[in-house]
Amino acid sequence: MVGGGQLARMTHEAGIPLGIRFKILSDTPQDSAAQVVGDVVIGDYRDLDTLREFARGCDVITFDHEHVPTEHLRALEADGIPVRPGPDALVHAQDKGVMRARLTEIGVPCPRHRIVTDPADVAAFAAEGGGEGDGFPVILKTVRGGYDGKGVWFVRSEAEARDPFLAGVPVLAEEMVDFTRELAANVVRSPHGQAVAYPVVESRQVDGVCDTVIAPAPELSEELSGAAQELALRIARELGVTGHLAVELFETRDGRILVNELAMRPHNSGHWTQDGAVTSQFANHVRAVLDLPLGDPRPRAPWTVMVNVLGGDYPDMYQGYLHCMARDPQLTIHMYGKDVKPGRKVGHVNTYGDELGEVLERARHAAGYLRGTIVE
Amino acid sequence: MVGGGQLARMTHEAGIPLGIRFKILSDTPQDSAAQVVGDVVIGDYRDLDTLREFARGCDVITFDHEHVPTEHLRALEADGIPVRPGPDALVHAQDKGVMRARLTEIGVPCPRHRIVTDPADVAAFAAEGGGEGDGFPVILKTVRGGYDGKGVWFVRSEAEARDPFLAGVPVLAEEMVDFTRELAANVVRSPHGQAVAYPVVESRQVDGVCDTVIAPAPELSEELSGAAQELALRIARELGVTGHLAVELFETRDGRILVNELAMRPHNSGHWTQDGAVTSQFANHVRAVLDLPLGDPRPRAPWTVMVNVLGGDYPDMYQGYLHCMARDPQLTIHMYGKDVKPGRKVGHVNTYGDELGEVLERARHAAGYLRGTIVE
Repeated sequence: MVGGGQLARMTHEAGIPLGIRFKILSDTPQDSAAQVVGDVVIGDYRDLDTLREFARGCDVITFDHEHVPTEHLRALEADGIPVRPGPDALVHAQDKGVMRARLTEIGVPCPRHRIVTDPADVAAFAAEGGGEGDGFPVILKTVRGGYDGKGVWFVRSEAEARDPFLAGVPVLAEEMVDFTRELAANVVRSPHGQAVAYPVVESRQVDGVCDTVIAPAPELSEELSGAAQELALRIARELGVTGHLAVELFETRDGRILVNELAMRPHNSGHWTQDGAVTSQFANHVRAVLDLPLGDPRPRAPWTVMVNVLGGDYPDMYQGYLHCMARDPQLTIHMYGKDVKPGRKVGHVNTYGDELGEVLERARHAAGYLRGTIVE
Repeated sequence: MVGGGQLARMTHEAGIPLGIRFKILSDTPQDSAAQVVGDVVIGDYRDLDTLREFARGCDVITFDHEHVPTEHLRALEADGIPVRPGPDALVHAQDKGVMRARLTEIGVPCPRHRIVTDPADVAAFAAEGGGEGDGFPVILKTVRGGYDGKGVWFVRSEAEARDPFLAGVPVLAEEMVDFTRELAANVVRSPHGQAVAYPVVESRQVDGVCDTVIAPAPELSEELSGAAQELALRIARELGVTGHLAVELFETRDGRILVNELAMRPHNSGHWTQDGAVTSQFANHVRAVLDLPLGDPRPRAPWTVMVNVLGGDYPDMYQGYLHCMARDPQLTIHMYGKDVKPGRKVGHVNTYGDELGEVLERARHAAGYLRGTIVE
């Protein structure tokens, strides 16, 4: 696996029972996964020679992030190394412009969008939407490199639309969707074409960062849930995705679903599956990458909740384990071994049970306590 | 953790979510745990200098086997390194003579037993039992070093009782218990005295090696189940055990329970907890060793079954995954990365569900298929 972040760390954990040899290419020995993986290569994934050296002797390559240049992936494939997901699929998770064009082509509902060239063009895009006023606000995104709110701008006027163009990279404009909540439809697809769909979840963001995931999404109609799963399965098939695909969705006020983002790797919206599903997203990603039959994606409890643990006031969260574990013996804490910095994702907690309110309270309490926003 | 076997491998897996640094002392880099752990020291645990060097910088030491000499453990403690379980507890899992003496002293029911000095003394021990005939058969065990049927003899006469004395180590004689089945009562105890008890399980042996574990033990009365849990909790407390304690039990034809063996580490009879309990034995062992509050030991399904995968005809079991995973998407396979040798434990499978017969069939099928005794 290329990358040494928490996704590689948790993929390693899920791969241990399969008896496979798991190797990572990590930026530094201090990275989250590099701390716990047995076979670690330190190097820069942007360097093709490093990638080639890393890939030598691997049966298959996969990723914990989308940042490996597409041409490098093609070079590895030309060397005869299976790359999963492959470059033709992965480009849709790397380049939002390519993603929007392809999804629109295959009839997948997306927010109104187009590539814009300068602030005046943004104003034109806003006006094209019709309706009252000048059509603002508009969302601007760099087509490559955005993550957790970075590379994304919410602009209310032409004057506010200057920053996104400073880097000289293509910018995608999207309408501001009137959504009631965000959902995620997560599926896993194998090279031989088998696919499984996890229950559709609700994902709550705070300041552009995922905060809480509820599985399954509360009060989601069976029709919309089924439609979201089918949509994700169709995207996986049409784009030739192998491995885990997260389809982030907007549920609109008028009862439609629109695709927000795609991620082709284990995803924050699937962390609940570690304790809440028969087969976790990490275990199924490994199975898919190895072209093994996929495991059962069904939930093990009526409700499972994941809340991210963000860096707060405490440089060391370990002391907080005492309170959290004593208060809730069913809680599971998943920490990433990262240095605590304010607002940084350093772990998550999972809870499950029969009553959503109680399950949600337990997860929120633990995450808040570890962060330091709840003191009791 | 001292030791690089599958118990260290699975303890590492369970420790990753806690964000702790986990280091092992392993005999070779090919050992089961050494393949997947990030921080591996290669060395001989029988050498005190090696142990001391390994222990430097550790907050606490624990074990995946009972073979570290007691005097070495005392030396580490004298160096100020917490050792969990400590030498005074661990000696009861290392020396069957000490264990029998202590359990008898605290009133724990054991098979009739005493240390014997030669074959004539074995015959005398047999006759002391009263009843018809000469009192044979008798079980003989070397007080140290036995494992999975090794160091254990079933003798029918004085003439058959010679081999156990050849090594010149003390030999313990035990009556042949008329048992209907074997049970295991597994508990975890922390240094601050908190303890949790897992459901009592039935453990089925084949040729002296654990084959199948059923959780909970079928048709076990609530009284006997509660008595077995209380017995295990009492032993843990009286012996000052920290970490996981497995109490292997005989259920006799006349409805009593007798203690067979003790193990103070994660144990084969607790592997079902990985997929069948809220908190696995490995996660709870780590918590206990770190003196953190313990996790919930309760089962997540009405029935969970574990079947060991033994080495058979196939040098590589990976090909068998295709059939097993496709046949049963809920199956979990846990392989140890070991070379396959006939009869060697190389992994296990877990299944769970509502109907014991079906759950048992699924686990047996998968383990038999991987081994090569079932072909379909």
